[in-house]
Amino acid sequence: MRFSNRIENGRARLVETGPDGWVLGPAKVEWLEESALPTEEHDGWGVPVSNTARIICVGLNYSDHAAELGEPDPEYPALFVRFLSSFTGHEQVLSYPAGSSQFDFEGELAVVIGKKARSVSAAHALEHVFGYTIANDGSARDFQFRSQQWVSGKIFDKSGGLGPSIVSVEEVPPGADGLKIETRLNGETIQSSNTNQLIFSVADIVSEISQIMTLLPGDLILTGTPAGVGISRKPQIFMQPGDICEVEIEGIGILRNTVSDRVVEQQHDGGEG
Amino acid sequence: MRFSNRIENGRARLVETGPDGWVLGPAKVEWLEESALPTEEHDGWGVPVSNTARIICVGLNYSDHAAELGEPDPEYPALFVRFLSSFTGHEQVLSYPAGSSQFDFEGELAVVIGKKARSVSAAHALEHVFGYTIANDGSARDFQFRSQQWVSGKIFDKSGGLGPSIVSVEEVPPGADGLKIETRLNGETIQSSNTNQLIFSVADIVSEISQIMTLLPGDLILTGTPAGVGISRKPQIFMQPGDICEVEIEGIGILRNTVSDRVVEQQHDGGEG
Repeated sequence: MRFSNRIENGRARLVETGPDGWVLGPAKVEWLEESALPTEEHDGWGVPVSNTARIICVGLNYSDHAAELGEPDPEYPALFVRFLSSFTGHEQVLSYPAGSSQFDFEGELAVVIGKKARSVSAAHALEHVFGYTIANDGSARDFQFRSQQWVSGKIFDKSGGLGPSIVSVEEVPPGADGLKIETRLNGETIQSSNTNQLIFSVADIVSEISQIMTLLPGDLILTGTPAGVGISRKPQIFMQPGDICEVEIEGIGILRNTVSDRVVEQQHDGGEG
Repeated sequence: MRFSNRIENGRARLVETGPDGWVLGPAKVEWLEESALPTEEHDGWGVPVSNTARIICVGLNYSDHAAELGEPDPEYPALFVRFLSSFTGHEQVLSYPAGSSQFDFEGELAVVIGKKARSVSAAHALEHVFGYTIANDGSARDFQFRSQQWVSGKIFDKSGGLGPSIVSVEEVPPGADGLKIETRLNGETIQSSNTNQLIFSVADIVSEISQIMTLLPGDLILTGTPAGVGISRKPQIFMQPGDICEVEIEGIGILRNTVSDRVVEQQHDGGEG
């Protein structure tokens, strides 16, 4: 089954994507109904998660990506956090980060938790997964590396993409293993790998994070990006206004976003309410 | 004015703390009413923020603390994120992080945003602040330094404290500047500084973060901790089960938490719903 947020008249509602079009989701996924969050998006696709979802991201989780950044394979996953406000939905516009000139793409498999998970073993971790979706972990590299902590480059408003749908676990192999993952910029393939290249598998990641915090239904885990990101290319390639960035994962779908114009920010001096 | 979450029968509700005891908060702070979040806490104090609040933390923001960690003064604030689930309220129990043996305290001034802030100048940033509260940015040091990113040591369930109240801006000097900040472990002073020692002032921080993301009412910013943390002491001092940790900020109050027993986690293998 596939579940999406569909935005109409500024309200998002959960829908099941079926052959007959949009229908309301079944009670089985009532936890997702909180996702009827108010939104400023135009009608269309919304991020398919609840507004209380916590989003944990894993860095450096493909060997070839760690290598292109000059990093060894990590022995423990490098975790960071993004806010839901830093994402937009499928077919929505990625906001070019104001003040940045290095807006980079990162295609990623995202895991949606379906069942409370606390201190679960890797052997049982997949029982806590509801499904999978696709993320573009869009990053303002110049901000990301201003300090030791990456978050400054990761929390710009709507600088990442999420969607189009959550695909439930029975539609893909266990742990979403062995799926082709590809990122395309204006139709040209710029990242191409397979989820079987993950250093820490979905089961490993869910297990490790559950040792730290109690994962709850609706929480989201981004599993890291493969090689090919713009900052590591020679010459470097960054996303530009008007570019179309697509992330495709076999069996899950295609997440497509256009990049906004650059906004020259006016300093707002107290005028906003 | 002072505002708190008071938990009764498992529900939190916003109250104004006045001389006559607990009363419901005024319409002025209706944005805080979302803080009526379901909770597993016992009756008593809750975290005084909404369940959709985003929590941004600044690292290394006192020179003496940066120095004790062998770090230079940062030129740009090192930002990271904590989840609300990693905090508990005043007089509630801090959960000892399972698997850690280095549970450290960090007393901090916390800023509560009251008015939307996007790309505001430092000169006008304080107009967007609603008030201040106190945080204990409790940290599992052994997890924090397992990877380049600190978050693994910062998102353990209820490993930090927040409260007791939000004190509105008119009760303290502009930017909460010049306030004595002190952390005590079992009555003994272990951190003692003044908010006038912040490298990036409250105005600087609000301005910088507002260049990255749109700050919204209810968002919380932790401004960093001064010197004296347990991992930097010789010999090192970490919080132990039964310890009482207090953080006091002049004019804002005292945040007091007891540390739980260590829990030896059983591997839960799919049994939780």
